[in-house]
Amino acid sequence: MAKEPKKLDELFHDTLKDIYFAEKKIVAALPKMAKAAHSDDLRAAFEKHLRETEGQVKRLQRVFQIIEEKPQTKTCKAIMGILEEGQEIIKEYKTSPALDAGMLAAAQAVEHYEISRYGTLRTWANELGLSEAVKLLEQTLAEEEKTDEALTELAEVCVNQEAQAKAA
Amino acid sequence: MAKEPKKLDELFHDTLKDIYFAEKKIVAALPKMAKAAHSDDLRAAFEKHLRETEGQVKRLQRVFQIIEEKPQTKTCKAIMGILEEGQEIIKEYKTSPALDAGMLAAAQAVEHYEISRYGTLRTWANELGLSEAVKLLEQTLAEEEKTDEALTELAEVCVNQEAQAKAA
Repeated sequence: MAKEPKKLDELFHDTLKDIYFAEKKIVAALPKMAKAAHSDDLRAAFEKHLRETEGQVKRLQRVFQIIEEKPQTKTCKAIMGILEEGQEIIKEYKTSPALDAGMLAAAQAVEHYEISRYGTLRTWANELGLSEAVKLLEQTLAEEEKTDEALTELAEVCVNQEAQAKAA
Repeated sequence: MAKEPKKLDELFHDTLKDIYFAEKKIVAALPKMAKAAHSDDLRAAFEKHLRETEGQVKRLQRVFQIIEEKPQTKTCKAIMGILEEGQEIIKEYKTSPALDAGMLAAAQAVEHYEISRYGTLRTWANELGLSEAVKLLEQTLAEEEKTDEALTELAEVCVNQEAQAKAA
């Protein structure tokens, strides 16, 4: 017998597993990024975002509960590629005054991946009538957008400092 | 003799090569996505974005010229991961009414990667005093943001249609 084609509820579940995998990888990557950062402000930003991300993981566990599924991961190649690029930056720019600028760019790529995923999941949760999940996903989406804005501000400060170091 | 650490101008050049690679991969992926799309609106959106992306490649070539470098690519693992996830969706949801919703999500992940990269490059070009490059990068950034908004609108229509198909 032919299998029924997958529906939106399965797409939601698959994508939830994808972002659950991604968030766990981000929790593992952030302490390394904080350790590598040259500026205290950037280190503090990464540490703050680590605590936030731990809360986002808990929200995802609650969303799994809402759809009566166990929290499960599914390899997310996108986040693996994005994080690998970040690791390359740390390696190649370790002693460079441009390291923080590069790490900020990597962190913003991570944020934007999450913003797109949570935006999508929120739209689908809404369609599926999962009102509590909508609220949880929106909370995380708002946090990610705020983090991205904070990183943009920090990026502008960072390149200025780099320019000053060059001029000195 | 120890090599001089890389500076912001090199980070800019490296990241330019990364997004140049990404844009070329996107140009190659979009016709496949258009072909797979179930809805005419989504197909038209992918075809429109293909033409736009071709223009963005040309702008990048001009930015290489501005910094007196030849247009060159550098493997961008992030976009490869993001596009691979999109291909998996096409494969797994081929006959599903949720295919378009899944492809839209994949396309928005691509857009957000680009938004983060062009935002970063614009900030750095500004710091490096490359005013013509700033303008070109801003044009592309505005296009990507507009495309993302259009995809969000389409995503809402898409899931509604999926829901109606389910109810029928």
